[in-house]
Order: sequence, then structure tokens, then C-alpha cells
Amino acid sequence: MIETVKLKEECGVFGAFSLNNPIHHHIYYGLQALQHRGQESAGIAVLKGSYVNCIKGMGLLLEVFSKENIDDLEGNVGIGHVRYSTTGNSDACNAQPFVANFSSGYMALAHNGNLINALELRKELEEEGRILQTTSDSEIILHLIAKYYRNGLVESLVKTIEKIKGSYALVILMEDKLIGIRDKNGIRPLCIGVKDGNYYLSSESCALDVIGAELIRDVEPGEIVIIDKNGLNSVKVDTFEKKMPCVFEYIYFSRPDSVLEGVSVYKARYEMGKRLAIESSVDADLVVPVPDSGVPASRGYSFQSGIPIGEGLIKNKYIGRTFICPKQKDREIGVRVKLNVLKELVKDKRIVLIDDSIVRGTTMKRLVSLLKKGGAKEVHVRISSPPVKYSCYFGIDTPTKKELVGSYMEVKDIRDYIGADSLSFLSLEGLKESVGLESICAACFDGKYPMEVPKEGSKYLFEKK
Amino acid sequence: MIETVKLKEECGVFGAFSLNNPIHHHIYYGLQALQHRGQESAGIAVLKGSYVNCIKGMGLLLEVFSKENIDDLEGNVGIGHVRYSTTGNSDACNAQPFVANFSSGYMALAHNGNLINALELRKELEEEGRILQTTSDSEIILHLIAKYYRNGLVESLVKTIEKIKGSYALVILMEDKLIGIRDKNGIRPLCIGVKDGNYYLSSESCALDVIGAELIRDVEPGEIVIIDKNGLNSVKVDTFEKKMPCVFEYIYFSRPDSVLEGVSVYKARYEMGKRLAIESSVDADLVVPVPDSGVPASRGYSFQSGIPIGEGLIKNKYIGRTFICPKQKDREIGVRVKLNVLKELVKDKRIVLIDDSIVRGTTMKRLVSLLKKGGAKEVHVRISSPPVKYSCYFGIDTPTKKELVGSYMEVKDIRDYIGADSLSFLSLEGLKESVGLESICAACFDGKYPMEVPKEGSKYLFEKK
Amino acid sequence: MIETVKLKEECGVFGAFSLNNPIHHHIYYGLQALQHRGQESAGIAVLKGSYVNCIKGMGLLLEVFSKENIDDLEGNVGIGHVRYSTTGNSDACNAQPFVANFSSGYMALAHNGNLINALELRKELEEEGRILQTTSDSEIILHLIAKYYRNGLVESLVKTIEKIKGSYALVILMEDKLIGIRDKNGIRPLCIGVKDGNYYLSSESCALDVIGAELIRDVEPGEIVIIDKNGLNSVKVDTFEKKMPCVFEYIYFSRPDSVLEGVSVYKARYEMGKRLAIESSVDADLVVPVPDSGVPASRGYSFQSGIPIGEGLIKNKYIGRTFICPKQKDREIGVRVKLNVLKELVKDKRIVLIDDSIVRGTTMKRLVSLLKKGGAKEVHVRISSPPVKYSCYFGIDTPTKKELVGSYMEVKDIRDYIGADSLSFLSLEGLKESVGLESICAACFDGKYPMEVPKEGSKYLFEKK
Amino acid sequence: MIETVKLKEECGVFGAFSLNNPIHHHIYYGLQALQHRGQESAGIAVLKGSYVNCIKGMGLLLEVFSKENIDDLEGNVGIGHVRYSTTGNSDACNAQPFVANFSSGYMALAHNGNLINALELRKELEEEGRILQTTSDSEIILHLIAKYYRNGLVESLVKTIEKIKGSYALVILMEDKLIGIRDKNGIRPLCIGVKDGNYYLSSESCALDVIGAELIRDVEPGEIVIIDKNGLNSVKVDTFEKKMPCVFEYIYFSRPDSVLEGVSVYKARYEMGKRLAIESSVDADLVVPVPDSGVPASRGYSFQSGIPIGEGLIKNKYIGRTFICPKQKDREIGVRVKLNVLKELVKDKRIVLIDDSIVRGTTMKRLVSLLKKGGAKEVHVRISSPPVKYSCYFGIDTPTKKELVGSYMEVKDIRDYIGADSLSFLSLEGLKESVGLESICAACFDGKYPMEVPKEGSKYLFEKK
Repeated sequence: MIETVKLKEECGVFGAFSLNNPIHHHIYYGLQALQHRGQESAGIAVLKGSYVNCIKGMGLLLEVFSKENIDDLEGNVGIGHVRYSTTGNSDACNAQPFVANFSSGYMALAHNGNLINALELRKELEEEGRILQTTSDSEIILHLIAKYYRNGLVESLVKTIEKIKGSYALVILMEDKLIGIRDKNGIRPLCIGVKDGNYYLSSESCALDVIGAELIRDVEPGEIVIIDKNGLNSVKVDTFEKKMPCVFEYIYFSRPDSVLEGVSVYKARYEMGKRLAIESSVDADLVVPVPDSGVPASRGYSFQSGIPIGEGLIKNKYIGRTFICPKQKDREIGVRVKLNVLKELVKDKRIVLIDDSIVRGTTMKRLVSLLKKGGAKEVHVRISSPPVKYSCYFGIDTPTKKELVGSYMEVKDIRDYIGADSLSFLSLEGLKESVGLESICAACFDGKYPMEVPKEGSKYLFEKK
Repeated sequence: MIETVKLKEECGVFGAFSLNNPIHHHIYYGLQALQHRGQESAGIAVLKGSYVNCIKGMGLLLEVFSKENIDDLEGNVGIGHVRYSTTGNSDACNAQPFVANFSSGYMALAHNGNLINALELRKELEEEGRILQTTSDSEIILHLIAKYYRNGLVESLVKTIEKIKGSYALVILMEDKLIGIRDKNGIRPLCIGVKDGNYYLSSESCALDVIGAELIRDVEPGEIVIIDKNGLNSVKVDTFEKKMPCVFEYIYFSRPDSVLEGVSVYKARYEMGKRLAIESSVDADLVVPVPDSGVPASRGYSFQSGIPIGEGLIKNKYIGRTFICPKQKDREIGVRVKLNVLKELVKDKRIVLIDDSIVRGTTMKRLVSLLKKGGAKEVHVRISSPPVKYSCYFGIDTPTKKELVGSYMEVKDIRDYIGADSLSFLSLEGLKESVGLESICAACFDGKYPMEVPKEGSKYLFEKK
Repeated sequence: MIETVKLKEECGVFGAFSLNNPIHHHIYYGLQALQHRGQESAGIAVLKGSYVNCIKGMGLLLEVFSKENIDDLEGNVGIGHVRYSTTGNSDACNAQPFVANFSSGYMALAHNGNLINALELRKELEEEGRILQTTSDSEIILHLIAKYYRNGLVESLVKTIEKIKGSYALVILMEDKLIGIRDKNGIRPLCIGVKDGNYYLSSESCALDVIGAELIRDVEPGEIVIIDKNGLNSVKVDTFEKKMPCVFEYIYFSRPDSVLEGVSVYKARYEMGKRLAIESSVDADLVVPVPDSGVPASRGYSFQSGIPIGEGLIKNKYIGRTFICPKQKDREIGVRVKLNVLKELVKDKRIVLIDDSIVRGTTMKRLVSLLKKGGAKEVHVRISSPPVKYSCYFGIDTPTKKELVGSYMEVKDIRDYIGADSLSFLSLEGLKESVGLESICAACFDGKYPMEVPKEGSKYLFEKK
Repeated sequence: MIETVKLKEECGVFGAFSLNNPIHHHIYYGLQALQHRGQESAGIAVLKGSYVNCIKGMGLLLEVFSKENIDDLEGNVGIGHVRYSTTGNSDACNAQPFVANFSSGYMALAHNGNLINALELRKELEEEGRILQTTSDSEIILHLIAKYYRNGLVESLVKTIEKIKGSYALVILMEDKLIGIRDKNGIRPLCIGVKDGNYYLSSESCALDVIGAELIRDVEPGEIVIIDKNGLNSVKVDTFEKKMPCVFEYIYFSRPDSVLEGVSVYKARYEMGKRLAIESSVDADLVVPVPDSGVPASRGYSFQSGIPIGEGLIKNKYIGRTFICPKQKDREIGVRVKLNVLKELVKDKRIVLIDDSIVRGTTMKRLVSLLKKGGAKEVHVRISSPPVKYSCYFGIDTPTKKELVGSYMEVKDIRDYIGADSLSFLSLEGLKESVGLESICAACFDGKYPMEVPKEGSKYLFEKK
């Protein structure tokens, strides 16, 4: 419940290169730190002499990997991928990394992002008689690189970048090299770490921390980073595109302990909470965060407002993929198995309930009801981002506009729908100032996409990768 | 890591009775709310006409039960059990409930607690040529009831209670009745809930909340509660024993949203934090809780001391039963895959690090090191309970005394071992006042057991049930 | 199809004892040779120091055991069991050996046979407050031995034998000893083998061959054989019962390469075929055996009659537990996936179709139809045993009398039902002479049971063990 | 043992087409009848509206398919494949059918045979930047068809046939059509069946029998058969190649109840036995077939020689994929768990032991030893084919020449090696006359391959498909 109505980050990627030492376990640990970016499938591919060895499968890392199989992946260079959990499309074939072993070479690729011209590229490839195994746009990138490869490695990568449109953070294994590529707008994150002479590429810096590596810098928009025995080399594709990192990484997707574009995610969220308290103060007794997404903003709100914070909602930490009994009629039980009200704390209190965003509004409606039944006198909902009004075409699994409560309801109507005593969202300006970057993609709030996007409803829009 | 060195609660029990409606899914949801009390095995037994149907197995509830099999358990009366996760003894035979189907009747039983005279009872039963299937002391109770059953239901229960010594919260299914029994000292918790005319028995009240039932009262020490079509009846075994509920339920085991003996667990922990701040104040910049066990006490400490609280340690919520790669040499990685330091927050700060207890000290040592490497100027450790010095014989999985750092080291030596700038424990008086009950079992701190206990090392001491 | 309408042997047992060497793999190989006696479950129990270690499960040996787990069973003394495959009652709890570990000892038991006073024994045990885990009558034997054990090992075995009525070949592990017991009538087979000073007990001698052991003799009716470091000792229970080995072991159950009571099973079947040719000769072109059950008798029939034999029916050897597609309407396909007619051979021929027995007649009806469609001019069915008319109470899974085509139809009506041009059964005299033993249990043909049996329909009649 | 040293057929294919009715279960039953041609993997692909649905996996049909998943394959047109069981290369990716779904179409393909120019074709495809997923030469055919598909269906098939060299029986699903193709020499078998207006393609006619379809004819060498709503159409590729069906289908691979090129396999084997008796008569008491491969030839030998036949070797029919205990030292046990000597039959007899072929000779050596230990006075080995001397390049898994006992030993040396009293092989002339076809590929005996073959040791020689 709680989690299924959040927007979903679609993937995490990780790569590692060592000259002399096995490094596969670092990929495993790195992916663990990125598990929040995807729980549907996981995979690791490493170089074994002249071919690529890959283990991938459906589920969490701990379901795909084990003490028994992890050492089959022993290797000095490798990449990994986690993909997010959706219902329905549980197709093992779409698990990444994608691997191609040739009689004279190999390629492995992991992708976070979304191509908006996937359909026309796919048709072009098929008309040449090429066979694609999956419905994933990431496989298209693999085929394009293969197609252009006769011209040499760098040339094939550059040509591929010129063909594909959309968002992409890529890690690739070819010719004993670890390669990282980030799209021209830098929409999806990708950073570089170093430890003991080893190189790492990661969607987020928190994965560098877990293995003790130091964050060197982000991969630049349009940059191809090539790591091999000669160290790190960079090729920059000419681009006049504007850097537009995704603002939702700061709001919800990235882990609070990550640093993206030099900005601490935790601090950005804390700042959002502070600004929210300034923009929308309320006379109340207790700040209650929605666990776990509302915690950092709650801290900022509490600090700024002086209202104490308390665990009014207790999360059951053993609820993973719980099923709800088919015949269950009590709809609230779906929320209560995940969250319980701490009545002793909320009784007779005026509550400020804080979360990072509202997508459909159904969960928030149940939480407000839960708190009121638990004895709360008032419940004032504060959201540390503006209403989500537009679909994302760049790697976030947004519902269609019709399902986005922010796109068809006024704030006061949402307030009535969720049953809150008051409801405020952080302003777009407040949000941007909290993050503090020069430019940022906030299209889900203002509809200003970094490039022209297909009309809603086109095929491939919501294929996950 | 983090979690494996905590003391372990050994079980949770739940029972449900409805006159006319299927109630098995309430048992399932109730057990989910008790999953923190045991992750090794799970089981549910329900009455099906004239026999008991039982599904049980190793692992979490979501591993044992599924949409497919839960409805095989449809029934109006039933009991459930979760047992805690230990390494090594992963024996499916010891999973509960234990069930016996007779040609003219049945019995099912689930037990939280530990019998201290299990060995002599077992010998007695075996000398009569009875065959016990497991090494569990809970099965002994089943055999005793069967043995005395010729004298009638109530008589057999009373006789059994007179035979067994130790701690026990029992839920039993016999003769269309749901039965609850609590040991004479009331060491392990057991409470009664009601909703829409249905009755529930549960180790903790948080499991009543999840199904929307109201907490009526606790089962009394030495009380037999019998629920059937005539409602709830009570038989009280004569006892001059003192009520001695386990203090560790308040410190760590129970969920913060439970109420035991009329005392809110969250409030007790908050109060421990406040008293800890009074007893052991320190000049510092930031209170950092060890997630998740240190959070409520941190709130009290922060409130009392005026020092702000911050998520200096970020937990990876997807780490469940992670394995550590066999060849991994970096020992700190074991901690870092579970917790990461939020450097932006702790850098150059004087930290008060708060947890509920110290068992072996190894985890705390690594956390202090992590914070210091993350840039913390000082780390002052504050523990919201006294040092654990004595083994528990009543259902808690304590290491032997030799492994309890509190039993062989002075506080200052522990401080040096863990590398903290200062270390203080809450006093026993402070702890008892925080809970506020007239009498309580705090034998793990002061060695004053509610009854004579076997010498350390005896067999059956640490058999789990 | 073919096989599911055969009568079913219910179990095979095997035991092994070596003074100094691991012998568990011999139990595994021995059970493989007995797999035809049971495919529902398999299990092996061995002595490990002072307790019994047991692995058992549903399915074939190769499903229960693997290279990985077989060595967990390393031991010098042990027993094993295979149970036959039935639909529906796929309950892992009923798998054998049954094991009881006491604080001062252990017992493991495997049983082939059926107790006819199981119900009253069970009631007696339950009234003493004893808890039985399964619905198996074999567990009753375990409890009886435990109950009488205070009087010493031999005494408890003798007392148990005096209590139980029915058929039983037992192998038992107690007090470092391997024990074999056979019922007073010797209904179910059990023999003794020796190799390199090691002792073996087996349902059939073919299991001795596989491990290279020599068949010494059969266990006598009412004999208790005790094998330990002092060698083999024998206790004979006083009995005036007549030796009555089951005739169906010779007709169908036992493997043709076994020797029971000094009689080669293959030779007995060959002889049945010869006598059948004498009793019921027919002018024909080709003898066709129903594979594989009709092969040895076909040889005898062909030899005696001079009619050549040919594989008119070809068996698909990869059909194990094939499922039939739910929507399949063509009922004959069920037979054809298992057997195909070799048209080139049968076309325009007059066929003598030979099988060992007819139970329901449905399979034979389809085979006759198959041959006729394949071009056979005439099909004369010859059965190497009389019509089965009575249920078995001693370990064979016979249908109820209502389903035994031989109990409610005359031979000519059966002939019409199956569509054969002629049909003959071997006479009871011919059968007995073919085997050549002084006395034999042929109650399924003549209703003369070795002891008084319960009325049809009583509970426990058809519980398998 | 017994079976692992036989030559291995590498695949079986089956296809079905119905205008109006679901036919997937016929594919399932058809493949069951072909299971002897491959036990490593199994798969079925059916047309679902505009795409192909495929289920495939490692293991036997009954392991890959179940009552639960078979109906997911409901469809009117489909193909299926079984692949043979080898150790080591247990790669699920190589399971067939291979499927490609395009945005505007689909293709599914199953292949029995072997391409001898796979390596050069693969290089050619990869140089065009095409990505092959597997190491199978069958996938190459898929890519070639896709590559040429712009020219239309028939043209792409014809062009593909012109490119590929080797043996191939193909069933293909494209454009609502079921397509069958057989190589220019007709090396691997493929036949056509009809029932109720439905069409079937099958490696062997026995699979037509099981579903009750009538064998119409074989697909001709170099013929493309296209079945769609207009019925069956045929395209014949111009070829001056000679028809060269594989002789080993008659010796061992095909089921005895199949008819290939108008010749009954059973009758051919029976004839081989007769001719063997004429060529190599011996004074003996009993003909013993090696089960099951030696049975039909034994019949012919016995008939011709007048020596009676008997089951001197009894096969354990429950031995499937038995493992041998790691510590087992007794090497003969490996044979005895599969075959047992029927001592009562062979004792003091002069035996003629008959099998279809000798590959390495190790198994035959053990069988001779087994019979001698069982009391046989003499053992005369007769083989119903000549010594295998040359590797196969057309779909049979022959060991390298070094391992073929027939390629490096004289007959009398083989006789000494296996310990037989005499040994004779059927002559090549005798073999060819037994089958009776005008021309046949017997290259494994005489080295006369139907086309130029690569030098031994080349890559791809022994890739299985």
C-alpha cells in the first residue's frame, strides 16, 4: 500500500574495474546500496577471460545471488543492474545486464533511463532483419552499438548516442574496458568513485560509501567515460543541451545519504521541510513523518517551526511483499499491516503529517483516517514538493495524467478528498531553492520537458528498464 | 550484523475465535504484527470440523503462507505462532503450533516462553514409553495435557500448570475452544482483544490494532482463559507468586506501539531516554539514534537535553538476510551494507549515539568507528538500560555470561573497547521508574530470578521455543 | 493408465549393518532395487553416535536423495523404506522410516504390511494419553515398542508382536542393533544377505544382488532377527500359525530377478505361462506380452505353444508421471502415450495377448481395441492368474470388491466387456503348482484369509504403509 | 551407465496446424512420443493472435510442462522440440524452439540436425553487427531467415537453404503458417501426418500414432512444406544431391514402432538380427538381449538360429538419472543398479548376448563380466551393426575417433577387451540389405560422408542442437 502508490525510480546501475583484483563482490555490495532503485530484477555481468559471464533473475539481490553462486562471478571488471518492482510484467527476459557474446568479443550493458524514440529505432533495426529478444529499449542500445561497431569502439558509442533520444545512464563492458555514459541533459544520475586504484561507476554515491570508495565527481552530461588499464579517459559528445538533472531524485528516489551534483540529498530534503514550514505554518502540537519517506523533511519542518516531532505512525519492518487475503473486506487493513498509529502519542493532538509527495492520494486519505481514529484532534498535511501534474518520459513510472490527483483536482479538493484539516504543498520555487542547482528538470510539476516528448499513450512510453 | 547481536525474543503467539465467521486471515495479519518476535518459522492451525488443519514452515510468514494456501486454513477458531531466527538449528520439526489429532479429538498448542524443568519432565514422559518428536519443551506441555486429559479439560490444564516450571504464554485449541494460559509470574506477555463479538489472544496489543480489535485486558498470571460459544470464562490457579513481567519487553522486544500491563512501550522508552539525559548529560551537538532500536529513547534524550536529533546513520531497508561474500576481507563492510553514515550531518559534530542495550559490544564498536571516520569530532554513547550481566532462563536468547560484555568488563573498559569518548548506561532504578510497574523481572541486570534456576550449562537452557 | 490399474504393493524395506564401515550407500542402492515396491515416498535412517539421523520425503529416491545429502547419512547401521505412489494422500508425514529420539536412546522403524487391528490399538494408546503423529498403523508399532520398552528390548518386541495382528515385515534400529521381524504367517517377504561380514535385510533378494551380497535365507514367520557386534541372533515367537506367503509377489509385485522362499520369481511366472498354454491353448500366429508385466509368462506360453512371440505393443520408456491435458477428450490417448501398436507386426495376425492379472478390466479393454485398430485379426486374452475376487487386508492396495471386475462378472462377460475373441484365466491349481510352495495366501482369489479379517469398509483397511 | 555410452540422437521436432481447434496438447503428446530423441530440454511455441508464446526449459517434458502451464499454450498452430541430455552443457538458453517477436510479426523455429558451416555463417552475421544469443547453430538459421525476410517468406527460406550446409529437419512458425523443411540429402527424418483435417509434422511416425493421425508421407529432401488455411503447399529447392537418410535411425535412434522412408524400424532391426545369425552363427543355449536396445535384433537372431530367447538381464525401470554415491568404490555397482543378471536363467548356459552397437566397449565389458559371474558358461557377443569408426557431422553425438573402440581396435582385440568368448559384428552389406533402401548414409561405418566435412576438432562440430 504505502509504497505501491509512490512514484517509482526505474533502475540502478553499478560498474567496477580493477587491474589485478577480483571486484565482483564490490558490485554485489554496491547494488545492495542501490536496491531501493529497483526490486523487480537484479543482475551482475563480469568479464571472464574472453567472454562475459552473467547471472540475473527476478527478485531482490538476495533472491538472485547466494554464497553459492556469487563466486562464479569472480572477475576484475563487471557491471550490475537492479530494476524496479512492478506487478504484472514479471518477465525474466527483461532483466539486465544485457549480454552479447560474439565469436571475437563480447558486450554487456546496463541502463537506467528511458528512450523516447525507441519505437522508431526498433522498427529500423527490424527492417534490417535484426532480431530483438526483449521489449526493452535498453536492448536497442545494445544492437545499435553492435551495428556501428565495425567503425571502432568510440565511434560506435558516439554514433549510438547521436541516434538515441531520452534519458540514459549507461554502464558498459567491452574490450576489457568499463564504460560509463550519461545522456546529454544529465537527467539520470551517474557518478565516479575511486578506491585503492580501482574505479567505480554508480547511480548514487551511497553505493560508493558501502565499499569505502571516494566520490570523485559526476559523469558529465554527454560524456563517455572509458576506464581501462590506462586509467580513466573521457570523450565528450558535442552538445548544446542544458543540464537538467531530475528533481525527483532529491525529493524521493535517491537515498538520503547520497550526494548528487554536489548536493546532499538529506540536506535538500531537510531544507524542503524548513521552507515548507515557512511557506505553510500551522499551529500544532506534533510533527508526524510518514515513514520512511517523510522523515528528513519532517526534521526541517520541526526545526523551523519549533513543533516537536514524534513517531505517531509505526512501521512494521517485516512487511515486504505481503499479500492481502483474497476475501479480506476491511480495506483499511491494507494500510494497518504496514503502519500502526501510536495512539498514546497522537491522542488529542493537533498533528502536522508530512510526506514527500502525493500521487493518487489514496494512501494519504487512509493515513489521515487512521490518525483521526487514533484520537488526533486535527491533521494538517504538508507535502515537501508541489502537486505532480505531468507524466514523466525519462525513467520514472508515473501513472497516466488521469490518475495523478494533482492534475485534475485543486488543492482544496484534494484536502477534502483526503479528509485533512488543511493541506499545503511546497511551491516550485521553494523546491528549486531547496536543491539549489542552477537548472533542474521539474517537468512532472511544470510540464517543461528537456526535449520534445511523444503524445501520451504512445507505445513504449512506460516500458521499464 | 546490527541485528544479530541483539538479544532475541523467542516467540509470538496469537489466537482467534469467532462463532460464525472465518477468522483465519485475522490470525495471519495478527502474526504479521508479531513478526518481530520471531523470523525462523511460522505456523497457523485452525479447526476444521472435527480435526485440526495446520500449515507451518521455516521462514517468514510471507515465505510460509501465500494467496494459494491461506484459504486452505479457512476456519472460525485457530492459533498461530512465530519463532525467532537463529543460525544453525533450522529444523522444520520444531516449528509450531504443535498439533495432535486423536481418533476422538484434537489439540493444537503454541508456546512463548521456556520451561526450566523440561529435562526432568521429558525423562518422566519417556520412562512411561511416550514418544516425543522434537527437542522442544513446548511439546512436553502437549504430552502432559494429553496424559492428564482423561480427567477432563480444565483438570488436565491445571495439572499441567502444576507440573511445569518456567515462563509460558500459551494459546491452545481443544474441544472447539480457544484457550489462553499465562505463567504464574506473568513473565511473558499475553493479552485479550475483542471485535464484533470475536475474541483474540495475542502476545502484544499491536496485533490487535492491525485487525481493528480493542484491547480488553492482559491475561493474569496463573490464569486460564477459556473462550467458546458461551463467551470468555476464566479459571485462576492458586498462586502466591509475585507478578514479574519481563523488563526487556519494554526495552527492546515489544513493538513501540504495544501496550503491556497498561504501560505504553513507546512512552516507557521515551521516558528511559529522558532519565538517561538527566543521569548522564553531555555537552554535544547532535543526538543520533541507532536505527531502529534507539529511536524512541533518542527522542526522550533530545527533548530533555535540548540537543537536536538527526539521522546520522542511514539504514538500508532492503537488507534482510544478506550474505557476506566468503572472501570479503574488509570487516567493516558488514556494518556498512546495513548502515551508512550521513557525513554531511555528522561532520565536525559532537555526537550522542543512543541505543537500547549492549550485548557483546562488537556492533557498537563498529558504529563508533564509522561515525568517527565520517568526521564526527566526539562520540558519546548512551544506553537506555543497564549492562546485561546475567543469562535469561525464561525465553530470551542471551549469550552465555562469558559473551556478555557487561558481565566481565567495567563500564570504562567497555568504553575503551568500543572507542567512545564517553559511555553511560541508564541505572536500574531509572529503568524501573521509566516503566513504572510495581514489580518487574530485571534478572538479566541484577540476577534476581523469579524462581530458582538451573546452573548455567544445563541442557535445554537455550533450546528455543 | 497401464500401471495405475495394477494392484499395488505397498512398501519395500531394507536394512544394513556393518561393524566398521559406512554402509549408507548400500541402503540407497538396495532401495533403488526395491523402487518398484513404492514410489510415493522414500527415506533412510542411520545411526549417528547416540541418535538416529533420517532423511525422507515424497517422491522417488532420486527426488529425495542427491549427491549433496546422501553423505549426511554416513553411518554403519541403518534402515530404509520406499512407499508406493497413490494419488491424493500425498502426505509427507506418513513417509517412513519413523524415528523417535529419546534422551537416552532412539528407535527407527520401517514397515511393509498392514495391521488389521490398528483401530483398536490406536484407541488403546490414545486413551493412555499418548500422541500419535500420523494416521499410519506403522506408527502404532513404534508406540507399542516404546510402551513395553521398560521390560527390555527383546521382551518389548515379543509383547508388541503378541499385540499386533496382520502382516508385517519390519526393519528396526535400536541399541546399535539392526532388527528384522516377519509376521507369524510370513505374508510379506523379508530375507537376509551377507557380504564381507556385513549383514543386510531386504524385502527382496534382487536388492542383495545389486550390492553384491549373498542371499542367506528368508526370515522365518514369527522370527525376530537381531544383528549386532555379536553377529546374527534369532528369537522365535511361539506360533502355531501356518506359513502363508502372498501369492501376488510371484504373480506381479516382486521383481523377476528375486528369489522368495527359494522360488525364482521369473521361473514361477514362466511356469504360469506354460501351464496357461496347456490349460487354454488357442490357434494363433503371435504371442504379444503386455509390457512389462506380461513378459515372463509370455515366454512360457510361447515355449509351450510354439507360437512365436513379438513386441506387438511398444512402451514409451520415458513416460513416468505424465499428466493428461485437462481438456483432452480422446480417451484412448491415455493408453497410446504409454503403449503403441507395432502395426507391421500385428496386422492380419491372430494374437494371444498375455498379462499377469485383470483388476478393473479398463486397460485390457483399451489394449484389445488398440490391437484391433492396428489390424489384428483376432485377439485372444490369456491371464496368468485367476480372476481377483476379494480385497486384500495384508498390504496390497486392492480396489473394493465392487470395482474388481472378477468379483461381479463371469469370465464370458469380462470377455465381452474387453472385446476379446476369447479370454482365459489360469486356474488356482495351475497357479499354485507354478509356484510350488506347500502353502500360500491366495485369498484375493479364493477368499481364504490366513486370519479373521474386518468387514469391508472399516476404517484403516486401506491406509497405506 | 548402460545408456550413457550409446550414441545420442540430438533432437526431435514436432509441429501441428489446425484451422479451428486448439492443438497444443497434440504437440505435447507428440513430443512425449519423441522423448527418446532428447531429454535435456523441451519446449513448445504456439501462435497467440499476433505473437508467439513459448514455454521451454531444462529437463524432460514432465519437468517443463504441467497441468498448470500447458493451457497457457492454447493455440491452433504450434511447434515443439526435445533436445538430448548431455552432461555439462546444461544451458537453458540453448533450449528450443527459438522465438523472435517483431513489432510486425514473429518467427519460431525448431531444428534437428547439424550445420557444418555454422562457424563461417556466424562470423558473417556478427560482422554485420547482428547479436546472437546462443552458441547454437540453429539460431543462425533464425537470423538468416530474418535477414532475407524483406524479400518475402518463400524467398527468405530458399535463400537460407542455399546458405546453410549440413543436416536439418526444421519446423517453423511464421505468418500463421506451419512450415517444414528437410535438408537436401534427407539425412534427418521428417514426416507428415493428417487427422480430421489437421496437419502434423514429426521427426518420427510413432508420434503421429499417439495422437491418432495417419502417416501421409515423408518430407522430401530439399522440400519446403507450407501448411496454412489453404492446405499443404510444397516448394522444392533444385538439388542434384542424393537422398542419404541416416542408417543409425534404423539401428538405434528411432523408436521400433516408427516407419521411416516406408521402412518399419522394428522390421529392419529384426532383419538385422536374422542376417547376423546367418553371418555369425554360434552353438549356444540362450539368446539374451541387452535391454532395451538389443530386443528386436534378438528376436530375429533367435528366430533364425532356433536358439530360445530369455531375459537374462533384468532392467530396473525406475532408474532414471540416478547418481552414484561419490565414495562408491565398487565400480560394477554402476551397472548393477541398472541391470541385474537373472541367475536362474543364465547359470551353466552358453549365452548369445545381443546389442545394436558398440561405442566405447566399457559397458559391454561389464555386462559380459556380470553374466559370467552369474554363472554363464560362455558369452558370445553379437552386434547388429558394423564397428563405429568415424565421427558423425550431421547431428549424432559421436565421441571423437580416439574414443571409438571400433576405430583403433581389431575385432579380436575388442573381443579380448570385453572378455567375450566370441564377438561378431553385422557386415555393412548385411546392414544395408536389412534396411533395404537404395542409398543411405553409413558414414560412421565407412567414412563416406554425403558432403565434404570439416577436419575433426573444428569448433561447432559437436555443438548440440
